[in-house]
Amino acid sequence: MDPSCGDGPLPVLGRDVSVPLVTGGEVTYAALDYAASAPALQRVWDDVAAYAPYYGSVHRGAGYLSQLSTDLFENSRTTVADFLGCRPSDEVVFTRSTTDSLNLLAGALPAECGVFVFETEHHASLLPWRHADVTVLDAPRTHAEAVETLERALAARTPHGPALVCVTGASNVTGELWPVRELAAAAHAHGARIVLDAAQLAPHHPVDIAELDVDWVAFSGHKLYAPFGSGVLAGRSDWLQTADPYLAGGGASRAVTRREDGGVDVEWHTGAARHEAGSPNVIGVYSIAAACKALTEAGFDSLVTREQRLVDAVRAGLAEVPGVRVLSLFGDDAPRVGVISFVVDGWNSSHFAAALSAEYGIGVRDGLFCAHPLVRTLLGAEPRETGECGAPEAAPGEKSLNAIRVSFGAGTPDEHVERFVRAVGELVRDGARWTYRTEGGRCVPAV
Amino acid sequence: MDPSCGDGPLPVLGRDVSVPLVTGGEVTYAALDYAASAPALQRVWDDVAAYAPYYGSVHRGAGYLSQLSTDLFENSRTTVADFLGCRPSDEVVFTRSTTDSLNLLAGALPAECGVFVFETEHHASLLPWRHADVTVLDAPRTHAEAVETLERALAARTPHGPALVCVTGASNVTGELWPVRELAAAAHAHGARIVLDAAQLAPHHPVDIAELDVDWVAFSGHKLYAPFGSGVLAGRSDWLQTADPYLAGGGASRAVTRREDGGVDVEWHTGAARHEAGSPNVIGVYSIAAACKALTEAGFDSLVTREQRLVDAVRAGLAEVPGVRVLSLFGDDAPRVGVISFVVDGWNSSHFAAALSAEYGIGVRDGLFCAHPLVRTLLGAEPRETGECGAPEAAPGEKSLNAIRVSFGAGTPDEHVERFVRAVGELVRDGARWTYRTEGGRCVPAV
Repeated sequence: MDPSCGDGPLPVLGRDVSVPLVTGGEVTYAALDYAASAPALQRVWDDVAAYAPYYGSVHRGAGYLSQLSTDLFENSRTTVADFLGCRPSDEVVFTRSTTDSLNLLAGALPAECGVFVFETEHHASLLPWRHADVTVLDAPRTHAEAVETLERALAARTPHGPALVCVTGASNVTGELWPVRELAAAAHAHGARIVLDAAQLAPHHPVDIAELDVDWVAFSGHKLYAPFGSGVLAGRSDWLQTADPYLAGGGASRAVTRREDGGVDVEWHTGAARHEAGSPNVIGVYSIAAACKALTEAGFDSLVTREQRLVDAVRAGLAEVPGVRVLSLFGDDAPRVGVISFVVDGWNSSHFAAALSAEYGIGVRDGLFCAHPLVRTLLGAEPRETGECGAPEAAPGEKSLNAIRVSFGAGTPDEHVERFVRAVGELVRDGARWTYRTEGGRCVPAV
Repeated sequence: MDPSCGDGPLPVLGRDVSVPLVTGGEVTYAALDYAASAPALQRVWDDVAAYAPYYGSVHRGAGYLSQLSTDLFENSRTTVADFLGCRPSDEVVFTRSTTDSLNLLAGALPAECGVFVFETEHHASLLPWRHADVTVLDAPRTHAEAVETLERALAARTPHGPALVCVTGASNVTGELWPVRELAAAAHAHGARIVLDAAQLAPHHPVDIAELDVDWVAFSGHKLYAPFGSGVLAGRSDWLQTADPYLAGGGASRAVTRREDGGVDVEWHTGAARHEAGSPNVIGVYSIAAACKALTEAGFDSLVTREQRLVDAVRAGLAEVPGVRVLSLFGDDAPRVGVISFVVDGWNSSHFAAALSAEYGIGVRDGLFCAHPLVRTLLGAEPRETGECGAPEAAPGEKSLNAIRVSFGAGTPDEHVERFVRAVGELVRDGARWTYRTEGGRCVPAV
C-alpha cells in the first residue's frame, strides 16, 4: 500500500531495512517494539536534517544561527503546549525522557506530600518518589475498581496533607487504557494532584491536559517517533516554581554572587529555565515538536482508527493459536493501544522472541518490561527477567516466568502484523526450525 | 583551502550556510561561538544519518535492530573510554551534558564530603554541590598560586574527611588552561579526589584521565562537535556504586518486589546502568563516540597546532585595536585554547556582538558566560547579564559591565578568524553602520 495514502502507515526511518534470517535469505525488518522505542517518522528526520546545518547555541548567542535556534527551541515549547492542550498558565519543561520528567516532579513535591501509585505502573512511575511517603495500591481488575481503590486510599490518608497520584495513560505491558479522567476527578475531589504518565498514551492517542483535567503530563520523544534524547513534563507551575532547581548550573541561574563570608548566593530563574540547567538538547526538543506537528497533521483520529484495526488483527490472530494467553488486567473488552503482551505454553518467552527475530525478522521484546509487580500479578507467579532456552522450561499449562510483548503504531505496515500472527502460529504448531543457546540470560541462535 | 587537506578545518555542518546582512547582501555564516556549542562534524552527522534507519530499542529488545543498537551503544562506551584514556576499572556513564554529569557526581558524594572549587568555575562546576560543605577559593593569578591556594585549603579543612576538588581544564571565559595535573597531585596528596570539568578542554586538547591522574572527567557532546543531547561522566566507580541511583526508574532497577507490608523493595543495578535509568539517548551517545573517533583519526596534535595558529592570529589582531582589552587570569603567556573574551572601551558588549552579527555575519556571544564571579573578577566591576544599546554606556576608559567571547575550533576556517579581526578593527575605528535598539535586555538591529 502506498504509505502516503489513506489507510497506510506513516513513513518511518528504517522501513526498507532488510535483515538476515538464520534460516537463509533476508527479509524487511518488522519493528514491533514501539513500546520500548519507536522509529523516527521520516518527517521528523527530514525536519531534523533540514535544521541541522543551522544549529547554533541558544539563549545568549548573538549570531544569526543562535537567534534562529533560540526561536526554534522556544517555538517548540509552544508546539508541544498546543499538542497537549495545555492551559495558559502551564509550564512545558524539556527533559531527557519520561523517567527524567517524573524524577523532576518527584523533586518538586511540597513538604510531607503523600504519593499514590498503583503497583501496575512502569518502574519510571513507581520508583521516583524516593523521598515521599508512598502508598502502593493493589492492581484493580476494572476501571471502577481503580477509581474506588484510589478514592479509598486518598480519603484514608493521615494526615490529610498534600498528595500526588501518578498514573499511566496506557499500560506499557497490556496496552490497556486507564480511566484517567475519572482518576483525576477522584484525586481532585480528595484534594490531591495527579500526573499522567503518557509515555505509552501520547504516541497512540490524543492527550488533552485540560480536558482530562490532570495537573501534569510526562512523555518521551523516543516513543513518539522522535528518538533524539528529549522528553517533556508539562503542567502546573506552582510546585515547579517553589522547588529547588532540578539541576544546578548555567541556564537555571540568573545571578551568582560571592558573599562576604566567601560563599556564593544564587538567584535562580523562574519558569521552565529553572529546571533546564545546561545547554539544552535543541535537536531533541525540535524533533519532538516536529513529531507533534506530523501526528496532528496526519490526523490522530485516522491514526487511532487504523491502529485499532491492527490491534484487532493481532488479538484475533493470537486467539486462534492454542496455548497463547494474552495478558490483561481489565478483560477482553477494555480499550487498548497497540501494545500486547502474551505468554505461550511450553515456551520460555526469550526463546520465542529469539525465534521471531532469527526466523522471521520480527523485533519484539521479552522479559518483564520494567513493570515487575504488574507482570507478577498478570502471570500469577514470581517472574524473572532472564530466560534460558533449549528445552522449554514450562510444560503446557504451567506458568510462564516472563512474557513477550508486541507493540506497534503509526509507522507499522499491515504486513508486519500479518507476518507476526503467522509466525506465532507456525512456531507454536511446528516449533522453531533453528537451535538456540543461552547467553547472558538471553536466548540466541546457535551458530 | 580544500577542507580535506593538511592544515584546513575539519568539515562541519553549516559550513556553507549564508546569512543576510542588515547592510545588504549575504555572507557565509562565521560560527564563532564554539565554547557555547559547536557545529556537528560532517563525519558525525554522516555516521548518525547512516545509523538512524537502524535505530532500535536497546538492552532488552529481541530483534535484530535492537541487538545492533545495543552493540553500538555499548561499543560507544568503549570508544569514549579509549578517547579519555580510562583506567580498566573506570566507569563511563552517559548523561545529558557536563552540567548533568557534575550533578550526578554531586549526588554520589560520600557523607560529610567537603567540596573545593575556585570562584572562577562555570556555574555548572560551581553550583551542583548543594548538599555538601563547599569552600569557594579566590581566583588565582598564576598556576602556582592555584596549586598553593588549593593545598592550603585542603590542609586546613576540619574535619579532615573526604573531599572533592572540581576544576575546569580550560576556562570557558578566558580559554586559559588550568594546571590540572598539579592540582590533581595536590588533591591526592591531601587525601582528596578531583573531577575535571573538560567541557572546554576535550574539544580542543587530548584528555588522558590516567596521565592527568584525575578521578573523574566530565564533558558534553554538544561542545565536542556532537550536538545530540548527550554527555559523559567517566572515572572511579566506588563512589558511583555506593550512591543512590541518579534517577529512579527502569534500566537502573534490577528487581522490584512488593513487600508484605504493601511497599516495594528495589534491587538496583551496579555499573553504569545504575545511573542511566530510562531509555538511553542512543543517537546522542553514538554521536559522541563518532566525534571521538573523528578527532582521533584527524590527529589531535595537528588540530591543536592549527588552533593555536588561529588563537595567535586573533590575539595579535585584537592587540592592534585600540581600546580592546582581552580578559585573562594568568597573563599573556598562559597556554590557552580557542576561547577568547574581551571588552571594548566605549561599547556595550551586547551592542558590539549585535553589530558583528548583523553587519559581518559573525556569531559570537556576549554576557557573563555562566561564570559570574569570574567575570566580576576579570572586569573589576559588578557585571550584569543584559546590555542596552544606542549610546555606548561606558565612556573610553570606563569599566565594561559584560564581555564579548569569540571561540572556535576544528571546524573554523581561517577566513572566519580573519573576518572577525577585520570587523573588530572596523567597528572600533568607524563605529557601527546600522542603528540598534534594546529588546529584552539585548541589543538588536533596528528595522
